[in-house]
Amino acid sequence: MVERSAGRPTLEDVAAHAGISRATVSRVVNGASRVSEQTRLTVQRAVEELGYRPNQAARSLVTRRTGTLAVVLSEPGEKLFEDPFFAAVIRAAHHELSTVDAQMALLIARSPDEVERVVRFLGSGHTDGALVFTPRRGDPLPGAVRSLGIPVVFGGRPWRGGRGLDVVSVDNEAGAMQATRLLLSQGRKRIVTVCGPSDQAAAVDRLTGWRVAMELGPDQAGEWSEPAEFNLEGGERAMTELLRRVPDLDGVFAASDLMAVGALRALRAAGRRVPEDVAVVGFDDLPSVAQQSQPSLTTIRQDPGAQVREMVAILQERLRGNEFRPRNRMLPVELIRRESA
Amino acid sequence: MVERSAGRPTLEDVAAHAGISRATVSRVVNGASRVSEQTRLTVQRAVEELGYRPNQAARSLVTRRTGTLAVVLSEPGEKLFEDPFFAAVIRAAHHELSTVDAQMALLIARSPDEVERVVRFLGSGHTDGALVFTPRRGDPLPGAVRSLGIPVVFGGRPWRGGRGLDVVSVDNEAGAMQATRLLLSQGRKRIVTVCGPSDQAAAVDRLTGWRVAMELGPDQAGEWSEPAEFNLEGGERAMTELLRRVPDLDGVFAASDLMAVGALRALRAAGRRVPEDVAVVGFDDLPSVAQQSQPSLTTIRQDPGAQVREMVAILQERLRGNEFRPRNRMLPVELIRRESA
Repeated sequence: MVERSAGRPTLEDVAAHAGISRATVSRVVNGASRVSEQTRLTVQRAVEELGYRPNQAARSLVTRRTGTLAVVLSEPGEKLFEDPFFAAVIRAAHHELSTVDAQMALLIARSPDEVERVVRFLGSGHTDGALVFTPRRGDPLPGAVRSLGIPVVFGGRPWRGGRGLDVVSVDNEAGAMQATRLLLSQGRKRIVTVCGPSDQAAAVDRLTGWRVAMELGPDQAGEWSEPAEFNLEGGERAMTELLRRVPDLDGVFAASDLMAVGALRALRAAGRRVPEDVAVVGFDDLPSVAQQSQPSLTTIRQDPGAQVREMVAILQERLRGNEFRPRNRMLPVELIRRESA
Repeated sequence: MVERSAGRPTLEDVAAHAGISRATVSRVVNGASRVSEQTRLTVQRAVEELGYRPNQAARSLVTRRTGTLAVVLSEPGEKLFEDPFFAAVIRAAHHELSTVDAQMALLIARSPDEVERVVRFLGSGHTDGALVFTPRRGDPLPGAVRSLGIPVVFGGRPWRGGRGLDVVSVDNEAGAMQATRLLLSQGRKRIVTVCGPSDQAAAVDRLTGWRVAMELGPDQAGEWSEPAEFNLEGGERAMTELLRRVPDLDGVFAASDLMAVGALRALRAAGRRVPEDVAVVGFDDLPSVAQQSQPSLTTIRQDPGAQVREMVAILQERLRGNEFRPRNRMLPVELIRRESA
């Protein structure tokens, strides 16, 4: 159904003016990619010349006060700005909030000072709610946001259980078990893991999944695992260390795709062929990383889009004033087979 | 000078409690990188146990109402989330705003709908001012923000001159001239350019700089230049096309480092050696790209940190209520010599 109101130009008017189909105009207006520059410019010119304004209210789903939702990323160090997984989260959040016609205000908290500022902002009525990604132990955000008076949904479980909080996480433990069991099913026996930092919930859960699948005692689990930051250099360094400690290793579960690429680099430097000598499984399934690595990565896919979608849905229920017990959703992950295992 | 107030723990107290030097504690608290995980955890524990809170007011420079400044990125398509230059801008903005103790609220506008939302947010008293990066022709933001009642400083000149606006841009034209003249000084004669999209001010200015240095008429400039999106695939495609049109080319100025890496790929595929057969100069000097490419890139360095710093300085003057004519600052760029030319 198309709304037409006298005097106010519609999408159809823009399409007619531009001499371009309504569907294409809609795609341009909604910022879709894969539109030629020429088409985009033609549509933009028609939009400007007609003074077209999309009908906001019709698409609005959020019961809004400010119309803005905060997305908070809490992560110390420079990692945040280099990690394609964070870029994927930001992209997904932007897309999902746009879908419900909410303005995304992205806030970054990397130090106690910054956490304090973020909490002040969230408590000052500038946003209707917040989606918070705060993976580290000792992060004061989960505690601080409880008394803000706006709904907050967490992406990934906060370190201390998250009792009383709405949380949407991915099943990191099951993903790690799937990865490890694939390697076991391929006859690999000495499967090590490049795990993440020990103060991060997702990293701990992935380590647990590997250990459970391997049925290892604590001593051997310690010897066969090496923590690292979630980046390429971390993966390379940890893999080098594991090769020193477990020279006859034949399988690797890396807790992220970037780490897996770093591990591939260390394995290559050590003259090990992948997957012939050592099979490797990553985690995340970042297209720019997993598909383009040599060899391409077998990995565990998590879907930041689905996660944010679920977080927004819970936030909207809270904004509508519905009362319900704290939600704790765990999203499934999926094994993606490529060349490395 | 160290502030001590009875009962309120200081940085010194945290240092003593953690058994770590004050300087290191300060680095952790301020989110510096290159701190070991162990140290960071120890400091975080001490911060929590003592209930340490940094003294905000002492470091505050912004005459604040909300204490928040918006950073607006306006760019259609997916590019925003893939481009390391945007990541560098976000990182620089976050760092500079943190330095003046302001909360950064990052807003993204990729379609007319989203521009409308951003303008609504900026006009609703949630922020004290805004830094706006809006490079495309036809972007409605520069016009829309004039009547908001909060100071706005633009990063990069808006397409239509930016009269009456505070603007901090980099000298794209001079940078392109420097790049082209380096190639000329190396005896290169048939120097083509992989330029950016023709609706983007920075791209147009870089194209102009190349053309002025080459002293080309419009026909030959058209034949020797090929526009592309600012990414690797765009650079590769445009370079392939230029090789077809100008088979005996011996120099390339690419309007971004990512494009230059794409051009290197196309040149390699065509069997041309760099720099022996064809010399290549990029633009941006993104460390992760320019230093790690094979061969490493000779390029034009621009400094997003300096740009944001200058933008924040102007914004602060406006926030202090100082009256002055619109500022139009143009920051210098620098030629960085590496292997590709």
